[in-house]
Amino acid sequence: MFRRTTFSLKPNVVIVGTGWAACYTAHRLNPSICNIQVLSTRNHMVFTPLLAHTTTGTLEFRAVCEPITNIQPALVNLPHRFYRCMVYDVDFDANIVKCVGLGVPGTTEKLPVHTFNVKYDYLLLAHGSRPNTFNTPGVTDKAFFLREVNEARGIRKRLVQNIMAADLPTVPIEETKRLLHTVVVGGGPTGIEFATNLAEFFRKDIVRLNRHLQKYCKVTVLEANEVLGTFDQTLRNYGHRRLAELGINIVNTAVVEVTERGVVTTSGETLESGLVVWSTGVGPTMLTLSLQCDKTKQQRISVDENLRVLRDGKAIPNVFAAGDSAANVTAPLPTLAAVARRQGAYLGKQLNHLITKKTMTQSFEYKDLGSMVALGDASAIVSLGSKRKIGIQGLKALWVWKSAYLSMIGSFRNKLYIFINWCGSHLFSRDITYIGDLSEDRLYKILAGHEMSRTKNRPQATEVLKGMTATQTFTPELLEKAVSNGYITQDDIREMNISPADMANKKT
Amino acid sequence: MFRRTTFSLKPNVVIVGTGWAACYTAHRLNPSICNIQVLSTRNHMVFTPLLAHTTTGTLEFRAVCEPITNIQPALVNLPHRFYRCMVYDVDFDANIVKCVGLGVPGTTEKLPVHTFNVKYDYLLLAHGSRPNTFNTPGVTDKAFFLREVNEARGIRKRLVQNIMAADLPTVPIEETKRLLHTVVVGGGPTGIEFATNLAEFFRKDIVRLNRHLQKYCKVTVLEANEVLGTFDQTLRNYGHRRLAELGINIVNTAVVEVTERGVVTTSGETLESGLVVWSTGVGPTMLTLSLQCDKTKQQRISVDENLRVLRDGKAIPNVFAAGDSAANVTAPLPTLAAVARRQGAYLGKQLNHLITKKTMTQSFEYKDLGSMVALGDASAIVSLGSKRKIGIQGLKALWVWKSAYLSMIGSFRNKLYIFINWCGSHLFSRDITYIGDLSEDRLYKILAGHEMSRTKNRPQATEVLKGMTATQTFTPELLEKAVSNGYITQDDIREMNISPADMANKKT
Repeated sequence: MFRRTTFSLKPNVVIVGTGWAACYTAHRLNPSICNIQVLSTRNHMVFTPLLAHTTTGTLEFRAVCEPITNIQPALVNLPHRFYRCMVYDVDFDANIVKCVGLGVPGTTEKLPVHTFNVKYDYLLLAHGSRPNTFNTPGVTDKAFFLREVNEARGIRKRLVQNIMAADLPTVPIEETKRLLHTVVVGGGPTGIEFATNLAEFFRKDIVRLNRHLQKYCKVTVLEANEVLGTFDQTLRNYGHRRLAELGINIVNTAVVEVTERGVVTTSGETLESGLVVWSTGVGPTMLTLSLQCDKTKQQRISVDENLRVLRDGKAIPNVFAAGDSAANVTAPLPTLAAVARRQGAYLGKQLNHLITKKTMTQSFEYKDLGSMVALGDASAIVSLGSKRKIGIQGLKALWVWKSAYLSMIGSFRNKLYIFINWCGSHLFSRDITYIGDLSEDRLYKILAGHEMSRTKNRPQATEVLKGMTATQTFTPELLEKAVSNGYITQDDIREMNISPADMANKKT
Repeated sequence: MFRRTTFSLKPNVVIVGTGWAACYTAHRLNPSICNIQVLSTRNHMVFTPLLAHTTTGTLEFRAVCEPITNIQPALVNLPHRFYRCMVYDVDFDANIVKCVGLGVPGTTEKLPVHTFNVKYDYLLLAHGSRPNTFNTPGVTDKAFFLREVNEARGIRKRLVQNIMAADLPTVPIEETKRLLHTVVVGGGPTGIEFATNLAEFFRKDIVRLNRHLQKYCKVTVLEANEVLGTFDQTLRNYGHRRLAELGINIVNTAVVEVTERGVVTTSGETLESGLVVWSTGVGPTMLTLSLQCDKTKQQRISVDENLRVLRDGKAIPNVFAAGDSAANVTAPLPTLAAVARRQGAYLGKQLNHLITKKTMTQSFEYKDLGSMVALGDASAIVSLGSKRKIGIQGLKALWVWKSAYLSMIGSFRNKLYIFINWCGSHLFSRDITYIGDLSEDRLYKILAGHEMSRTKNRPQATEVLKGMTATQTFTPELLEKAVSNGYITQDDIREMNISPADMANKKT
């Protein structure tokens, strides 16, 4: 059935994912010797180490995203191609990747779901990992993760929603405290960077939004082991001091459940919270679980020293895996951006060699260059080197941290944007504009019942509202009293015993 | 029941809305002589004239938003207060504004809905307007408006969704064309600025994302009267030439229905489209309709020459209305940002006077300074003055346009961000990273059926996927052929007659 074209066929190099490993491979691949086919649910790479800083508006989302077509410009032209789809299985015998794509959500009730296959000559599995919930009930549905931009956006949205709802005059003081209490589960670098950044936001910037809410804002970090456990004793002590100075509460416990109102710890205590961020390491994705190949104990794809995927203990010669999704059984590397980045660069180079010369020149070796954690706006801890470690702490460590990340960012555009964002957040305070905001349509929908169309909701909801009675009336007297008390409490209102009718009578 | 505080009571000035009129009033009010109470669903002002430019990433959303607490810094301290809520009625006799606030969406199935009242001594109704759909079926649910940031975000999201879905290998060429065809209903300044900006995006920037999609991208403007009808003949002719150069299709027609697949015009023709933007002027909100006061024919709140609200032909002395929501019957002003801005500034000054001296010094007068429309990246038309009009066109008009808006933006922060965005979009191309992107959770949910929790969706959906058969397999041969054809069409695939099984047999 084939009608051969006059082209000399180049091999299909299929890359699954657009994370660190996938993007560095795509970047290094020579597009003139192969067809690069990138399959991923997102069309951009996320600069994950800075993601925590987007949640409070210290950085803008666009500044940590790089379109895949900027990373490998050849992808804008056929035969190279980016497919926005999800990969759900691989047939290693037929050399086929199985994909599912989606139509445009929102246009119709029933979304068209397309499945298709992509044939590979060389395959890189770099689809990453999922947050590890340890099967704790409620985590997937009620906690927030911090691995994708839409998750970071969700956290930012929830934060501003909480602040706005906490300030509603009808909300009791206990609920205000709950809404403004953020619990971070996991005391690793990501969790700590998020917690310190949020604490700085509460310390410096919330006063520009609403001064009297500041005293209710609280951040708690829950960690079953030691916070900042990967650093040596001196740096760890410094880190703990710094966290205490920022008012971050550290609790040494694990979590047994996440509920609508907070987290339940091993001791059975409930910590009431308006936002739970889950950052306790990663586990396998559905794709990794589906694959018919060898896995490590942690359910990562088993690879050999050349990052080739193992099946029944033998390497499949044209299938590679890198990043969080893969590990060498004998020397598993941590699930870090730095590892994935080095693996991606290695594979890009080796694949070029493999395609042209049919051999690989060397095996993958990883040298740990150290680790860094920013602790708010004025300090960090940095540990350099793998054996003889050099520790740096304080403001100069933060400069190392900032310089290192700025130099690692691929594009000049994002270097510039991040630099401008850092300056801007410092000068003008963090961005506190919440853009989605209270949607009238959502409100109308809730009031009207969920069944109707947007057109019908509005008049229906208006009728419902007209039938409701107000719980309280806010008057100049109440406000002046609030000033002298520092805040209006529910008790004040009860004490003052004002009903809307009273007020109307009083005035007229 | 009252226990008077020792404070001398200041009057409550209640402002409904955070648009141009509301924000300029709040900005001008003297916070030491009154309690400023701002009620609105959003905690920021939107710089509406530049909103169209955020849809393609020419400008970032944050750059056109200004937090209300930056506009009137006194609002961070009691007794001044910002309430994020929706106002649904006003009792002009009891001097009470009726509000409804919402809890935090997403935490529980049943959202707590709070109603409360706020007492006013002086009231400004500046809650704006809603897009006028002329009761055309389907508009509210299927078209996009361009008045709020979340609407602009929706358009941007849909645009990138369309581009990504149009490029899915399983999508037929007719569907690709539909998805990449944008219809703008309304040829006024907003519609034209959006259309030209999008046309520039298609002309210059989509090639950096996907080169072979460019030829299918199309923008059509539907207008029942004349496009750019408010400008004089010379400028209008120039504008029409410029639109033609940008490849924008102008159709002189009205729309009778918006469907899932496009718009139906008066002639009964269906224009297939993946994105419909509705920009045909404004009408009253639910609140305006609810109010027990005089209205104009266009259902705007009737006001006198001091912008006081009229009831039974008489001015209510302490209630004002401004912006889109209000008009003087004898000389109604257009619903423009410029009008609202001048009215806000006037009212802020007059309210200060009214509170301290109990009188107003002068009535409101509006002088039309002219109008401007940007026509893409390299030209604009500007008409200055109201009687003897001065017309400017081309690149120098665009410089006038840019300078005028930069000078009108309130904060130095946003002036800087907009300037940087303009430079950045020029240097690095418009931002095409779509952040929400194809959500795996959404996909799993659709595949698993809507009933389950996120935790259960994943394994269930995986089972469904394993049972599906792929429609096509993409091979190096197919890709090479696509290059010679310029694109892979459905016909190609049928002609090549490849099934996954075929491919597997061929290779092994």
